[in-house]
Amino acid sequence: MPAPSVFCTRPFLAGKRQLLTNLCKTSVDFKQCRNMRLLRFQGPTGPRLAAERKDGHVVDLNACAELELTTPGDTIEFLTAGPALWETAERLLDDKESELRVDQSEYLAPLIRPDKVVCVGMNYRDHCEEQGAPIPTEPLLFSKWSSCISAPYADIQYTDETQTLDWEVELAVVIGKQGKNIVERKAMSHVFGYTVAHDVSERTWQLQKNSGQFLIGKAMDSFCPIGPVIVSKDEIADPHNLTLRTKVNGILKQDSNTSQLVHRIPALITFISRFFTLLPGDIILTGTPPGVGCFMKPPQYLKEGDVVECEVEGIGCIRNAVRRPDAA
Amino acid sequence: MPAPSVFCTRPFLAGKRQLLTNLCKTSVDFKQCRNMRLLRFQGPTGPRLAAERKDGHVVDLNACAELELTTPGDTIEFLTAGPALWETAERLLDDKESELRVDQSEYLAPLIRPDKVVCVGMNYRDHCEEQGAPIPTEPLLFSKWSSCISAPYADIQYTDETQTLDWEVELAVVIGKQGKNIVERKAMSHVFGYTVAHDVSERTWQLQKNSGQFLIGKAMDSFCPIGPVIVSKDEIADPHNLTLRTKVNGILKQDSNTSQLVHRIPALITFISRFFTLLPGDIILTGTPPGVGCFMKPPQYLKEGDVVECEVEGIGCIRNAVRRPDAA
Repeated sequence: MPAPSVFCTRPFLAGKRQLLTNLCKTSVDFKQCRNMRLLRFQGPTGPRLAAERKDGHVVDLNACAELELTTPGDTIEFLTAGPALWETAERLLDDKESELRVDQSEYLAPLIRPDKVVCVGMNYRDHCEEQGAPIPTEPLLFSKWSSCISAPYADIQYTDETQTLDWEVELAVVIGKQGKNIVERKAMSHVFGYTVAHDVSERTWQLQKNSGQFLIGKAMDSFCPIGPVIVSKDEIADPHNLTLRTKVNGILKQDSNTSQLVHRIPALITFISRFFTLLPGDIILTGTPPGVGCFMKPPQYLKEGDVVECEVEGIGCIRNAVRRPDAA
Repeated sequence: MPAPSVFCTRPFLAGKRQLLTNLCKTSVDFKQCRNMRLLRFQGPTGPRLAAERKDGHVVDLNACAELELTTPGDTIEFLTAGPALWETAERLLDDKESELRVDQSEYLAPLIRPDKVVCVGMNYRDHCEEQGAPIPTEPLLFSKWSSCISAPYADIQYTDETQTLDWEVELAVVIGKQGKNIVERKAMSHVFGYTVAHDVSERTWQLQKNSGQFLIGKAMDSFCPIGPVIVSKDEIADPHNLTLRTKVNGILKQDSNTSQLVHRIPALITFISRFFTLLPGDIILTGTPPGVGCFMKPPQYLKEGDVVECEVEGIGCIRNAVRRPDAA
């Protein structure tokens, strides 16, 4: 199995960070959560919520009595608690000594059981061009089940139903604050941070069957690996200028930038919240750039044994092997 | 506001019940849960899970120490616990004295926060005929968000996005046991019971916008009232022979029978579980019969102040007024 590539590993944007820290002094929004990289791992007694320190060590947030978190491994409890608790967690991250390191095999999805996994289709200009399709004037929304979410290094299930399995790297937005009918200028205050998502897609079921409804082709078990961490939004200087890439068996397939987004994050939040109340923990998959397998000539699809790496600059890389569930 | 009609109120199938009880002595499946009508209500300290007794009184299951339920009002905890706990609950229901009655205003949705609300489209023969559409050879699946679920007497939100709002009564199946790739002959062993669902639909967003994806038109806030109770499956002698009806402002609009289902419950469970692991608490909305507003000539849509009643024989009647959220 190829090692994950490292171009996006923890670039702490050192210069920009000081600038941001200074800017934050007058910004309620940016004060809400600084420099937090949340993760979940499998501890001896079950899932734990943790945060990475700058030195690479990890602080087990469920072991911090000061936070009064009641359910180990419950990221949504942490998000729902809001800015006061997040600030306490940040302080602990600086103050606590930690020798804890988490092995890749122990990583869990950084968040599970959100109410919604909202997916956006046709949201990269270059992806629309790849298909010869017009650029949509409104976001196209579809869904995955909450239980589609899987760990950053978990297998993608290859079954009799997945003969045309395709890759889609995406920047995912993690909601931190509830809202309905959110106006664009306030939209970013509802964002906690970002993670990498792989919007795994079974093209026959997505496009040719189920009367054209995407659901089955998008929401099979294991079709939403996320992680490896949730990065708080202030760590990302500009979410609309991030490189994102997919490699299959080490070969580059997708290589674009979130600057190509048709509908940017605030516009997506405003649109989505016209219909649905966004809740802490909800995840918005913002769409995929060109380079998916189904538009290649001839089309390329994932097969048993393939390994897909999806990376977003400033967040990290997830790596998922394609395997039969009973062969895992 | 018209009183809910009573045709489906607690017909306990007295004669058939003794027969079933006798049959159950050799059936593991039927032994799993007998004569249970689960509900949730708003208690003084928060939501409570309860069950109706035959005398109309209610037993607060969260007050039964024997059950060792940890989260008040958590129906999924009850379902996940499985048959041993269900049997204890049944015994308590017979043994406990109770003076508790629950007023309609206190009813909550009998279940919240399932992983999945799986919806089936075009699943009544007579509904297909109404549209002049062919009868589908496979189930058509789409989804609602978990948070669409609302209480049996809650308002349906009328907003600027709901100018073509339509009704759809449905029999909903509540899953009691996890499963993937479930074969038809074992499918019913995964069913805990049934409830009434109103698959509220915004036709413009469902059919004409969002590039044909149903999601927005089907999953707005408040678009899935369910209840008033979850009836355990043994109370329903034949789920494929139940009258179901919708009235709008007291006028009958839908009036059919689940005998018209194209894909019956075991076939639906088998099909759905080819793709998705079904989990305790998951709800399957089995489709709606003819009589929806959008196929009337001229079309009829719900407007502010309308009251919709959806009833399924042997389960009950839910009643939802259409109101502006800020006018509620």
